[in-house]
Amino acid sequence: MFDKIKKVLIGKPLQNEEIQGQKYTVFLGLPILASDAISSVAYAIEEILIVLVPVIGLLAYRQLTYISAAIIGLLLILTFSYRQTIMAYPNGGGSYIVASDNLGTVAGVTAGASLAVDYILTVAVSISSGTAAITSAFPHLFPYTVPICLFLLVLIMLGNLRGIRESSMLFSIPPYIFFLTMMVTIVVGIVKYATGNVPAATAASNVQLTTAALQPVSLVLLLSAFANGCSALTGVEAVSNAIPNFKKPQVKNAQRVLLLLSLFVLLIFGGVTVLAVMYHAVPKANNTVLSQIAASIYGNSAMYYIVQATTAIILLMAANTSYSDFPLLMSLISRDGFAPRQLAHRGDRLSFSNGIIVLSSVAAVLLVVFRGSTNRLIPLYAIGVFISFTLSQFGMFKHWLSRREGHWMHKAVINGFGALVTAVVVMIIGVTKFPKGAWIVVVVIPILVITMLNVKRHYNAVATQLNMEPEELSAADIDNSVYCNRVIVPIDSLNKASIRALKYARTISDHVVAFNVSIDVESGEKVKKKYALLNTSIPLQVQYSPYRKIAEPLLEYIRSEEYNYIKGDIITVILPEFEVEKRWQHILHNDSGKYLSSMLMQYHHIVVARMPLHLKGEGILFDTLKKPEAQK
Amino acid sequence: MFDKIKKVLIGKPLQNEEIQGQKYTVFLGLPILASDAISSVAYAIEEILIVLVPVIGLLAYRQLTYISAAIIGLLLILTFSYRQTIMAYPNGGGSYIVASDNLGTVAGVTAGASLAVDYILTVAVSISSGTAAITSAFPHLFPYTVPICLFLLVLIMLGNLRGIRESSMLFSIPPYIFFLTMMVTIVVGIVKYATGNVPAATAASNVQLTTAALQPVSLVLLLSAFANGCSALTGVEAVSNAIPNFKKPQVKNAQRVLLLLSLFVLLIFGGVTVLAVMYHAVPKANNTVLSQIAASIYGNSAMYYIVQATTAIILLMAANTSYSDFPLLMSLISRDGFAPRQLAHRGDRLSFSNGIIVLSSVAAVLLVVFRGSTNRLIPLYAIGVFISFTLSQFGMFKHWLSRREGHWMHKAVINGFGALVTAVVVMIIGVTKFPKGAWIVVVVIPILVITMLNVKRHYNAVATQLNMEPEELSAADIDNSVYCNRVIVPIDSLNKASIRALKYARTISDHVVAFNVSIDVESGEKVKKKYALLNTSIPLQVQYSPYRKIAEPLLEYIRSEEYNYIKGDIITVILPEFEVEKRWQHILHNDSGKYLSSMLMQYHHIVVARMPLHLKGEGILFDTLKKPEAQK
Repeated sequence: MFDKIKKVLIGKPLQNEEIQGQKYTVFLGLPILASDAISSVAYAIEEILIVLVPVIGLLAYRQLTYISAAIIGLLLILTFSYRQTIMAYPNGGGSYIVASDNLGTVAGVTAGASLAVDYILTVAVSISSGTAAITSAFPHLFPYTVPICLFLLVLIMLGNLRGIRESSMLFSIPPYIFFLTMMVTIVVGIVKYATGNVPAATAASNVQLTTAALQPVSLVLLLSAFANGCSALTGVEAVSNAIPNFKKPQVKNAQRVLLLLSLFVLLIFGGVTVLAVMYHAVPKANNTVLSQIAASIYGNSAMYYIVQATTAIILLMAANTSYSDFPLLMSLISRDGFAPRQLAHRGDRLSFSNGIIVLSSVAAVLLVVFRGSTNRLIPLYAIGVFISFTLSQFGMFKHWLSRREGHWMHKAVINGFGALVTAVVVMIIGVTKFPKGAWIVVVVIPILVITMLNVKRHYNAVATQLNMEPEELSAADIDNSVYCNRVIVPIDSLNKASIRALKYARTISDHVVAFNVSIDVESGEKVKKKYALLNTSIPLQVQYSPYRKIAEPLLEYIRSEEYNYIKGDIITVILPEFEVEKRWQHILHNDSGKYLSSMLMQYHHIVVARMPLHLKGEGILFDTLKKPEAQK
Repeated sequence: MFDKIKKVLIGKPLQNEEIQGQKYTVFLGLPILASDAISSVAYAIEEILIVLVPVIGLLAYRQLTYISAAIIGLLLILTFSYRQTIMAYPNGGGSYIVASDNLGTVAGVTAGASLAVDYILTVAVSISSGTAAITSAFPHLFPYTVPICLFLLVLIMLGNLRGIRESSMLFSIPPYIFFLTMMVTIVVGIVKYATGNVPAATAASNVQLTTAALQPVSLVLLLSAFANGCSALTGVEAVSNAIPNFKKPQVKNAQRVLLLLSLFVLLIFGGVTVLAVMYHAVPKANNTVLSQIAASIYGNSAMYYIVQATTAIILLMAANTSYSDFPLLMSLISRDGFAPRQLAHRGDRLSFSNGIIVLSSVAAVLLVVFRGSTNRLIPLYAIGVFISFTLSQFGMFKHWLSRREGHWMHKAVINGFGALVTAVVVMIIGVTKFPKGAWIVVVVIPILVITMLNVKRHYNAVATQLNMEPEELSAADIDNSVYCNRVIVPIDSLNKASIRALKYARTISDHVVAFNVSIDVESGEKVKKKYALLNTSIPLQVQYSPYRKIAEPLLEYIRSEEYNYIKGDIITVILPEFEVEKRWQHILHNDSGKYLSSMLMQYHHIVVARMPLHLKGEGILFDTLKKPEAQK
């Protein structure tokens, strides 16, 4: 049942060899990796204005241009810095790798944790913003913001569980359309403005604009606005992280994509800033700035809906970027032992399904808690990514210093400058957004780092304890064991299953005891009487349990002098069970075997053997057995 | 952790012998068993008026008296009928037993299923009505109806999981207080009315009363009102079901409780009917009829709040009645094999905890779906109980006919008449309430009956297949088994756990194979090379799995010609596992053992032995091992 649903939703399992076919060309990689960065135009400008407009009114628009210019400047610095990273780390130069490599474990793990947090936030922010694009166009959907967010999240999750290739085919065209749409909108918008053809902003926003320009422009205000705007830069690192996903030549392709990505962001972010200034869009809860601009330019025409639709779609693509990056990052971290190993396993469809599920779950919680509001999520956003920028740039700086090859000084200067600038940005974001929600991230990242270091310590401890050196392996005398194997067969009553278990027990040991727990003397005598009929040398031990438990009396018996347990002996407890044909029939039988088994497994020298008698299936042999469903 | 919470909420485990101490005296049994019947006064009269008032306005109050009289008449018939049942079935004469005994399996199971459905509805209706008593007194709580309902449900559930005795101590006094409060209210209300001291009903209700009296009184209308009112009689069968819960002399005590119960119902139901007529209470969503009456009599005084509080409490006691009856009924049905066996097991505190949990869960679903509205739940209510009344009375009728002892004719007439009357009531309720929700019950009961019969069939089939006759037992030659035991040890890598498993394997069989699944040739060669270091005759089999599965390649290998499986052989698959110290560490390791084990258990001739190596616990022996938490 479950497997069938899974197959319909996620598709049939793929073989390992099918991985190669699912890699990015420049044409396919660009939209997938760039969508995060270019989509932020949908909220970054709005989030800048949200800080400025209520305080300084109309003056906000002049400040917006300065802030946008600063952000674009930051983008250029990052682009140059990351070009160098891609070249130096052709096998994937995510901040995690670069920081681990050059700055040590703690820095690496910190970069990884920070980036992971921001990937999750990218999903939440992009989906909430995408939903806002939809509800701006269809205001009656506004009350259903959270359900829409969750629906979109599930959609993207399923798409990604289906595998890399399909998602890239599915998601490669719309970003280009968005780019074109935005370029057309920018040109049309500027021309209309230049020709004096500007419709008035809505009455409500004008009121807000004229009444609010009371306070002077303070540095804190500008830095707050800048911090919000930095959310526009969260997609830039995606390329360096995803190099292994590229087709060969991987480095060249990745660099090309990074350059094109920056160009796209520059054009769109710059263009929309100009439009926002020209059209005096005012941030509102239920109508995005981009929607207001588009409405001002196009009215209620089809073009308005095209802008909204492509915006929503590009934002979903942005969420999708995290779906290729987060699981990949987690698989790297997990392979190094800092995260649960399951995150490094590819699922049936060759995607890192566990990472995808973790990402979706946390994003879902964020969307519910912050009620799908971009504005509420933004204070948490961008710190993580800038921490990882800083660590990565600083790592590259050390990288060049320690190698001193080629143009190392030139390169060190670029990355060193990048590190400095991004470190300052981290401070700005952390301080200005701290009370509004950044504190959550500031608390979560160190917890994550400590947890990850503990996980690694645990894996190391396990490996050390399990490990056997070659000489130990040679010395292990497997065939002449000193183990004495003793068997206990707990029996409920004497039936085909328990008799079969007793027979089996006899074949694996000469020291077998049949063990029965009776609730009272009466039923105990019944079992004894029946047992006496048997033709066997196996003794029967009956215990009484007023608490109706089985595990405890059994363990007590093993500890008793009567049983005379000798250190080093292995005790095999054989559980005679029976398997019923159909799933629903399981609930008709106590799963005491499972419980008993988990209780006994807590003891070092007990082996638990479960021996199922198949009812209605007796006599069926392997050659005639159908393969079980789950294996198909 | 979980166990500690459980102990705080539910209490420490009790021994089997402690059951006897937890039985009812008349004084304790009456409030517990009567609360269902007497509490229905809180909604039954209101539900009658809900049908009448909107259609015939003021005329409703005259019709109410006729309908109440009919219901009290029905109560007397049932009381006489059930007195006879208690005498004839001193070990518990629930409809399930009486119908099974005299009318056969299908009738018995039908009676049981019907009663079970109505016990669940009693919980839902009583809690929703109790919540209405609270929100009538505190109107600002009205929007929180469903959360309040669920909170109360959980409270009652926990109380009952703690055990019978404690709940009876906790719940025995309030019903008496309720009874007294109601009697005082009836007397005061009648006196105030007689002395002409009646305050006007609220303006809103007067409007409704004067404008609605347009349609004539139709038979359908009266029958619908009567059907709603029959919900007052749902607690009458409780006594006969609970005879085993009484202290000796059980029959006499039970009969006394039944008589007192009927007297209480008669007085309160009759009295409140009179008050409703005098004070012209009008059904409203957010103010119960009883609350309106109390407010008219007492104003906003303390007495009003006492009436509301005792009403709420008695309704919760009514829900509690189902908590003693439903689990007991299910345990009887389960002991006969018609329901999952787990329902017959007493929990740590000697209550039938599984039954309690089933009851609570279904009631919770009903409360959520019907949004805690008594009025929405009523159409589902009372059919079940009247079906079981009918079957029980008809069963008693046959009982007397077939015995022909003592005053058999006299008794047969009483029960026969009861059967007839209740059968007619079933028809009335079923038809009038069908479109409003009774159809759900009409559909559910047959499904339950069919399921229960199938469950029985399954248990029979299992017992037949497992059963061994004494001569078969004597013939079973346990010590000289013809089984050949072959062992496979799946190994991931060569470490202490797998070496230990190989050693163990050697002690239980001479036919051992080490089995490795590698994802590619490279890692396969690695394992082979390491294995070559071992000093053993056990061969290593390496398979490659492009799908990253383990179970399927293993099963394929077993099926292969190479393995040469011979029919009848037992294959023991030993899973080398390791156990980590702390709970959280479990999530860091794949539970592939559990999965593999469940896959292999689907095959008849595979025994799955799990062999845990305890990390950080190595060398610890039984004598030094602490008892695991769950067993304390």
